Amino acid sequence: PDDTSAEQARDRQGILTKPPGSLGKLEELAVWLASWQGREKPKLDRVEVFVFAGSHGVTNRGVSAFPAEVTAQMVANFEHGGAAINQLARQAGANLTVIPLDIDQPTVDFTIAPAMDEQAFLDAVNIGYEAVKDRPDLVVLGEMGIGNTTVAAALSCALLGGEGADWVGRGTGVDDEGLQRKASAVDDAKTCHGNALSDPLEALRRVGGRELAAMFGAILAARHAQVPVLLDGFVSTAAALPLAKLDPNGLAHTWAAHVSAEAGHRRLLDALQMKPLLDLGMRLGEASGACLAVNILRGAIACHNGMATFAEAGVSDG
Amino acid sequence: PDDTSAEQARDRQGILTKPPGSLGKLEELAVWLASWQGREKPKLDRVEVFVFAGSHGVTNRGVSAFPAEVTAQMVANFEHGGAAINQLARQAGANLTVIPLDIDQPTVDFTIAPAMDEQAFLDAVNIGYEAVKDRPDLVVLGEMGIGNTTVAAALSCALLGGEGADWVGRGTGVDDEGLQRKASAVDDAKTCHGNALSDPLEALRRVGGRELAAMFGAILAARHAQVPVLLDGFVSTAAALPLAKLDPNGLAHTWAAHVSAEAGHRRLLDALQMKPLLDLGMRLGEASGACLAVNILRGAIACHNGMATFAEAGVSDG
Repeated sequence: PDDTSAEQARDRQGILTKPPGSLGKLEELAVWLASWQGREKPKLDRVEVFVFAGSHGVTNRGVSAFPAEVTAQMVANFEHGGAAINQLARQAGANLTVIPLDIDQPTVDFTIAPAMDEQAFLDAVNIGYEAVKDRPDLVVLGEMGIGNTTVAAALSCALLGGEGADWVGRGTGVDDEGLQRKASAVDDAKTCHGNALSDPLEALRRVGGRELAAMFGAILAARHAQVPVLLDGFVSTAAALPLAKLDPNGLAHTWAAHVSAEAGHRRLLDALQMKPLLDLGMRLGEASGACLAVNILRGAIACHNGMATFAEAGVSDG
Repeated sequence: PDDTSAEQARDRQGILTKPPGSLGKLEELAVWLASWQGREKPKLDRVEVFVFAGSHGVTNRGVSAFPAEVTAQMVANFEHGGAAINQLARQAGANLTVIPLDIDQPTVDFTIAPAMDEQAFLDAVNIGYEAVKDRPDLVVLGEMGIGNTTVAAALSCALLGGEGADWVGRGTGVDDEGLQRKASAVDDAKTCHGNALSDPLEALRRVGGRELAAMFGAILAARHAQVPVLLDGFVSTAAALPLAKLDPNGLAHTWAAHVSAEAGHRRLLDALQMKPLLDLGMRLGEASGACLAVNILRGAIACHNGMATFAEAGVSDG
């Protein structure tokens, strides 16, 4: 981050025609964007939304209300412009790129063996890393993958402790038995992998999934390029978690766009001490909540860049 | 409201390519807009933001961190495009109209006499009522008026009970003594007007202000024309309160866009059982929080109107 740009932006907020602090989070967001973009007046001319899709062996355990083939069907829906994210990305003035990751080849059921071998894991991380090109103004991350709230729960549980029941939720809408199956799958994964889960990257390989590995790679690439990132829901935040475990300051370039209705997400955000911008009861994934938050960021920089100062407007500053 | 359109919209939400309910508040918002606009697929082609400005005799009591002349200075700033609301209205794709109400003639200090005589009160209500013309798709209400968080506190206290200290906050940034002066002004107003405050409209005349009366008029006009309304912060919600007191269902066409950092606002929203869309620590007024929420509504209808159904996309519906 660029401390000089952050300080210039903070100073500017203090002389705009409003009581100091009265724009609340909008002021913090403008300073955060200034800091990572390295300019006093941030811009959002190029916003890149990446939706990574993956298939999961753990769906064999009956952890979703939808059949596994819906992942491929929804990828086709994205390509034809029919999904929520297509509408929300357009409304946010963002470019949408959907990246399916071997979706015809599910990961291994992680309750019995590592989800990915090392090559598959690194391939997925690299695809995410390479997606972030030419320093966009903002990266927005989302995912699609039937079964992946169980994956997010397993990864969160592996790295933050607790039991499966603490981290699972109804996802796309499982019933009580489905919820129990999700909790058991997470507990079985912990038993299966044991101490190997104490390494954040190894945990991501063993109980993660390709789309989580790719999001991890994209978050890392954004950090290297000093690009701010909006995280979406439970799954994208879980994908970011290994970086926070590797470096306590590792997610400073990311902001939680919203807190989802999936209970594990709130618990995870609390553990990461991240305060989400929106709380709208959403639980769709696809970067849908994060895309909504893009327009909050646009409002923040519209005020920051466009407002008159007290001196320019001839307004008494209290 | 149009129950048929609401039901059609609700049915449509059930067949779009997402788990039922997974868009959370966005689904409720789409159905709410459908209901008041009387169309299955709502639109937001014409969004009208009205910012009413007024001057307050109670500023004599030292209730603001800014001098009273800032009201006129900020109205000039609105006209020159330099304020937060100019940037946020543009970013929301909304038309902004600023309506100053005799700002060179403050209301009477309501701690000693009614703020407005009947003619002044009715004139202000009428100006607000007449502002809502030709059935816009959405009305967004905000205000400017140094001293008016004390007015909002007095009106809330008059109609909902409690003491001044329960309803006042730091507004534009008063210190501890200023906060005490605000609480005393509210308590003195209750003592001065006594039982006359039990009538909601009489309370609005006696301890309100011109911009609150105008917002009340605009909310009433919107109801008559079946136009949905976004309320902004503490002052605009307080202006809506008399209608809720006159009719428990009187604010069904309104939605609280955000909850402000001014503590009285949360208390007031709780009393009205209104759940705000945003909670961003804002406390500026000017319709700033409500304008940010317009883009949440745009996201809601973009999904509602533009998404494919399960049948159209060939996606299994669970």
